[in-house]
Amino acid sequence: MSDETGINERHKARMQKIKAARDKIMETKTVEKGLIIVLTGNGKGKSSSGFGMIFRAIGHGMPCAVVQFIKGSMQSAERDLLKAKFAEECPVHVMGEGFTWETQDRERDIVMAEAAWEKAKELIRDDRNRMVLLDEINIALRYDYLDVEAVADFLVNEKPPMTHVVLTGRNAKDMLMDVADLVTEVKEVKHPFRTQGVIAQPGVEF
Amino acid sequence: MSDETGINERHKARMQKIKAARDKIMETKTVEKGLIIVLTGNGKGKSSSGFGMIFRAIGHGMPCAVVQFIKGSMQSAERDLLKAKFAEECPVHVMGEGFTWETQDRERDIVMAEAAWEKAKELIRDDRNRMVLLDEINIALRYDYLDVEAVADFLVNEKPPMTHVVLTGRNAKDMLMDVADLVTEVKEVKHPFRTQGVIAQPGVEF
Repeated sequence: MSDETGINERHKARMQKIKAARDKIMETKTVEKGLIIVLTGNGKGKSSSGFGMIFRAIGHGMPCAVVQFIKGSMQSAERDLLKAKFAEECPVHVMGEGFTWETQDRERDIVMAEAAWEKAKELIRDDRNRMVLLDEINIALRYDYLDVEAVADFLVNEKPPMTHVVLTGRNAKDMLMDVADLVTEVKEVKHPFRTQGVIAQPGVEF
Repeated sequence: MSDETGINERHKARMQKIKAARDKIMETKTVEKGLIIVLTGNGKGKSSSGFGMIFRAIGHGMPCAVVQFIKGSMQSAERDLLKAKFAEECPVHVMGEGFTWETQDRERDIVMAEAAWEKAKELIRDDRNRMVLLDEINIALRYDYLDVEAVADFLVNEKPPMTHVVLTGRNAKDMLMDVADLVTEVKEVKHPFRTQGVIAQPGVEF
């Protein structure tokens, strides 16, 4: 038997074992439910992952909705694409006016955050929506513009059982992660802002 | 001065300071370049982030392309949506036939991976493409179906300067991260597969 044949056969045996183990695990997975999904961390890709899930859900024909808590005044090409091509499948509600350091006005930020949260509750309660993205809500929670206990309580007690809610933004509060079904931390390993003086570029950063 | 007024004024002063610091940092960022972006880690959201960036780039009117290295036979709603709505803006090339443990055939996997890489090189060399997503290429690299040195060398020496290339998949090789401009690690913190026996669901997992 040649070396190459040996490698291929060992590969096949190993892969059969992995497949059998996976199939066995998958058999135990039987629950279907709407998930509370938190995307947090200091790395790039939280909002793009959230919007990616929205595009994926649209691809499945699932009605969706988006509330942007912070990025209102910023450019957001995903938002523009949703508005241009999928206004019916996924309405986008832009509630925030920019990051907190842009507005520099706490009272106005709080009014905005509360209005965004009222809209979010309305969209989540409407059980025709199968996925609702609350983009950058963690920033509003972090500055206590919204009460994390009220948000966690609503998600646990009022979210329709089959609706997925995706919450993005760095510094997710512990209480939110506690009630979440799925938490992903997006970690910055290397970033060209810092190391190469590269500016924010279309398609990558916004 | 009431407490609330004091809080608001201190907030404003702090936010002005943050804004000034950010503006100063941003002034030093002047370089514009096509980036090598690696999305890796054991968490959910690598491919959805990659596809999210593609949708974002489409929103900017940037011509894009996608090569799927592994997920060929799997359901992929983002791919279906791209094919249905954005075939011109972003052609998708599905080259792989499934995960390695599904095919269990190393020789066929290698032939597939090499064909996918040839297609990827062709798409990257065509400098009309502004962003090229190589979805799950890290799995092909991990099993040595592709030579990481050849891939790294091509990206450094032949990628047109303004093209962004996004490479996804867990277990990214060190050499790839070394040549990357931006590396994000997507970490699993909590996952309902493990903790609640929840199955893979449309919109969330595929």
